[in-house]
Amino acid sequence: MINSQKNRQVLVAARAKGIPDPSNFAVIDGKMPELPPGGAIVRVLYASVDPGMRGWLSEEKNYMTVPTGAVMRAHGVGEVIASDHQDFLPGDHVYGSFGWQQFASAVTEDILWKVDVKLAPAAAWLGILGLNGLTAWVGFNHLARPRAGETLMVSTAAGAVGGAVGQLAKSAGLRVIGLAGNDSKAAHACAELGYDIVLNYRTADNLGMAVAEACPNGIDVFFDNTAGEIADAVFPKLVAGARVIQCGTASVSSWLPPPNGPRRERDILVKRLSWHGFVVMDHAALFPQALRELGALVAAGKLTGRDHVLEGLDKAPVAIEMLYRGENKGRLLIRP
Amino acid sequence: MINSQKNRQVLVAARAKGIPDPSNFAVIDGKMPELPPGGAIVRVLYASVDPGMRGWLSEEKNYMTVPTGAVMRAHGVGEVIASDHQDFLPGDHVYGSFGWQQFASAVTEDILWKVDVKLAPAAAWLGILGLNGLTAWVGFNHLARPRAGETLMVSTAAGAVGGAVGQLAKSAGLRVIGLAGNDSKAAHACAELGYDIVLNYRTADNLGMAVAEACPNGIDVFFDNTAGEIADAVFPKLVAGARVIQCGTASVSSWLPPPNGPRRERDILVKRLSWHGFVVMDHAALFPQALRELGALVAAGKLTGRDHVLEGLDKAPVAIEMLYRGENKGRLLIRP
Repeated sequence: MINSQKNRQVLVAARAKGIPDPSNFAVIDGKMPELPPGGAIVRVLYASVDPGMRGWLSEEKNYMTVPTGAVMRAHGVGEVIASDHQDFLPGDHVYGSFGWQQFASAVTEDILWKVDVKLAPAAAWLGILGLNGLTAWVGFNHLARPRAGETLMVSTAAGAVGGAVGQLAKSAGLRVIGLAGNDSKAAHACAELGYDIVLNYRTADNLGMAVAEACPNGIDVFFDNTAGEIADAVFPKLVAGARVIQCGTASVSSWLPPPNGPRRERDILVKRLSWHGFVVMDHAALFPQALRELGALVAAGKLTGRDHVLEGLDKAPVAIEMLYRGENKGRLLIRP
Repeated sequence: MINSQKNRQVLVAARAKGIPDPSNFAVIDGKMPELPPGGAIVRVLYASVDPGMRGWLSEEKNYMTVPTGAVMRAHGVGEVIASDHQDFLPGDHVYGSFGWQQFASAVTEDILWKVDVKLAPAAAWLGILGLNGLTAWVGFNHLARPRAGETLMVSTAAGAVGGAVGQLAKSAGLRVIGLAGNDSKAAHACAELGYDIVLNYRTADNLGMAVAEACPNGIDVFFDNTAGEIADAVFPKLVAGARVIQCGTASVSSWLPPPNGPRRERDILVKRLSWHGFVVMDHAALFPQALRELGALVAAGKLTGRDHVLEGLDKAPVAIEMLYRGENKGRLLIRP
């Protein structure tokens, strides 16, 4: 029965110079996968859309690449429908690397952990309790080492990671300031994501002055998802000993070659800054602790996420553009 | 008797836009100081000349400023000649902030520690066992967290700090690569300061390619004293997880405003870099451990420094320029 079914898939058709668009993808009806020895077949309930996908498709050097002709790599949450592994039974829900497709042939390396859809709905395990929540937790708690009373600046306050960082920081007793690309996102971040002030970086007359006014004691932690000129407005307000967490570079459309900007070496020296780049999967050893703490905050009503669900894989080829244009309202997911 | 003696002093006459030169100083014959209550009068044996002095005199914001009309701030080694403090007796040798002058009125905050001139000569306590050695130790051991087998790059291999870093790294089992501004410094760094290869950054046809050839496995730790275009040649060779230690910015003559250079955010993110600025005095709690380890290496003949002594304070006003032009052969000191 299942073998007569089609498996809708999104393949990588060509590498991208900037933000991937429909020319980089092909949507096809593939075959149903066969059960891999020692693995499982997973019906994908939700597949992820992430800013990092730009890097995976880029012609530039990156920490991760998806080859042309392959199914687009993506994390997802799904249900096991067939299994050759004793830990994963039909009906189990799992989180892992299942790609932009309806059915995934998953070996054990692809399945990262089981999720409990009674504790939180399947989509939440891709957002606030998935890599976004983990990214926020690792960057904020492990790398930034925040202290109550400090001022935090997040350059994408209403984003999937930024929204989680704001709520973690509020719970930790920081003053939480953010930037967002429109007034409705800014209002949402203040109303629901723990932010004290969120500035609209597109409409501010002088963003540097607006940041200075919003942060009269300077900035102790800068959680940066944008880089570029938006970050330039923040750097002068960093205090001595400030920590900069580089979690993304979304405001710069091409890094080949890197664009020029003000040199940071003097600020780094004189202000004794620490500037950390990170990729969350390097910190997998921290995930059990992080998921315990994130789960407790969700249970206490102190941590929430909003989802923006695209219906059907046919919408996947425009999804990364949507993200970079800021058109999503909440965590962008695809329901295959 | 002593009160009829003059006290030659170098005063700050004007703030500097770039590298301080004689127009920023006035050399005078001041009065002998009086013994301060609870302090000491110190005859200065050697006074220091440091790259950081540019910042102390700068019009720009800096972590330390010397006001116009004051004696130029400088660390030094001296002999106590009169004391009102039970810990410091006439004949004791001390390290501290005594300024560019022959005799200093030192309160307890000015006297950092006693030194043993039988263990190492007075000048050594201003160099390899002074703030330069401590700076090398803190940046290398505490911030860079090196592992044997890694490749270290130092952008001023033959400098007072860079020379110490090279020797510490060699003792720790790293591959030690450096840059220097002329062939004689490069040869000296290879012969005496632990370096495996030192490139002349002024004569290399393509510094980036030369760095790549010298570091076939990439660079794990970049100890940067120059910033600017010299650092630009190093950044592309950093490996994932590399640590950048910003100890100076000597190749850039003015930071007001900061010059432009290639943006680093993408490298920081994709390579998971950690970039640390530091000022050694922030790490004073580590000094006892650092001095024990540095002293043991000196005793074992694994750590040496070379001094370049200017005779007389009349030479002090050109000393900072000398340093930035790279004319000193070894640690630049003034014998007042």
